[in-house]
Amino acid sequence: MGDTDTLLGRLIEALRCLPGVGPKSAQRMALHLLERDREGGLELSAVLSDAMERIGRCVECRDLTEHERCAICANPRRDRSLLCVVESPVDVLAIEQATAYGGTYFVLLGRLSPLDGIGPAELGLDELEKRLDEQAPREMIIATNPTVEGEATAFYLNRLAESRGITVSRIAHGVPLGGELEYIDQSTLAHAFGSRQAFSSG
Amino acid sequence: MGDTDTLLGRLIEALRCLPGVGPKSAQRMALHLLERDREGGLELSAVLSDAMERIGRCVECRDLTEHERCAICANPRRDRSLLCVVESPVDVLAIEQATAYGGTYFVLLGRLSPLDGIGPAELGLDELEKRLDEQAPREMIIATNPTVEGEATAFYLNRLAESRGITVSRIAHGVPLGGELEYIDQSTLAHAFGSRQAFSSG
Repeated sequence: MGDTDTLLGRLIEALRCLPGVGPKSAQRMALHLLERDREGGLELSAVLSDAMERIGRCVECRDLTEHERCAICANPRRDRSLLCVVESPVDVLAIEQATAYGGTYFVLLGRLSPLDGIGPAELGLDELEKRLDEQAPREMIIATNPTVEGEATAFYLNRLAESRGITVSRIAHGVPLGGELEYIDQSTLAHAFGSRQAFSSG
Repeated sequence: MGDTDTLLGRLIEALRCLPGVGPKSAQRMALHLLERDREGGLELSAVLSDAMERIGRCVECRDLTEHERCAICANPRRDRSLLCVVESPVDVLAIEQATAYGGTYFVLLGRLSPLDGIGPAELGLDELEKRLDEQAPREMIIATNPTVEGEATAFYLNRLAESRGITVSRIAHGVPLGGELEYIDQSTLAHAFGSRQAFSSG
């Protein structure tokens, strides 16, 4: 029964394509859906096939969308003079949810990692260059993750924009709000110390 | 974009019907499928709808199956004089994978819990009684979980079988193999101590 001869076994096996789902969680998910939420399972099946077939990339920012242009690029009220470069669609979601940012995005869908065969072409950096040339944004905000690859990507992005005379900024890194110094890792603390700013009482 | 206006937002929302999947994991799953495993996503969608529509309960043991009888009940080589009563289909999977048990099962799909409205009828205990009367197994093995409700269920099951003169056994509870006494909870240790058995050197 745990094998793939049965439909239940095949369902458990198929659920394992989800990241972080091992044999035990897959069993639990399959039984939960079958015993308590068949409607949810059918709904998930329908949305899943729809999404896998119809979601592509926005022609302008490369974000995932089922339309030609994503909702942000299609919105005429977004400020095209601000361009925020992120690694992944989840970063767009996170920034949209947390901030009042009203500009546009460019989604790399990855980061420079030559050893894994991910170079400028894979990240669509030629498209980004075209966009920088055509739209000439006032400011490019680099919001790649503060990892080694993310930093290398940021360095590369900075060169692209600087050579065109575009202001480049990078989101601030340091101790998170609510974080306690004693639990912060050493490199973050060292960075936060080095990047200290004049105290503003406003 | 995190809302349900977009197909991506709807996919993230739909994935949350899976147990243990919160907003962040759902995002990660959706993006993983879209960026790296569309084929797996389509396969999951197909198996999911198939399973939700076709899987029902075995007429004999109440286990989940897409056939009238599950693979175990349909197998003429399984010993019908042994009947193991478990709470859930996962318990059948676990026993089949770990042991060489060759008998049959009865799956309660729950445990007695009057406060939640789960009584003997919800667990199909009338069907179990009919089966005990018709097939008159030699031994009934109770393998409900050692929780309060599982124990109450075991007590009830024991009465059903004893009144018909059927031998009743219960799987052993105690310190797990490889477990260390100092890390075992007190009630398990007390139970293991109370249920000690004569040392056999075979």
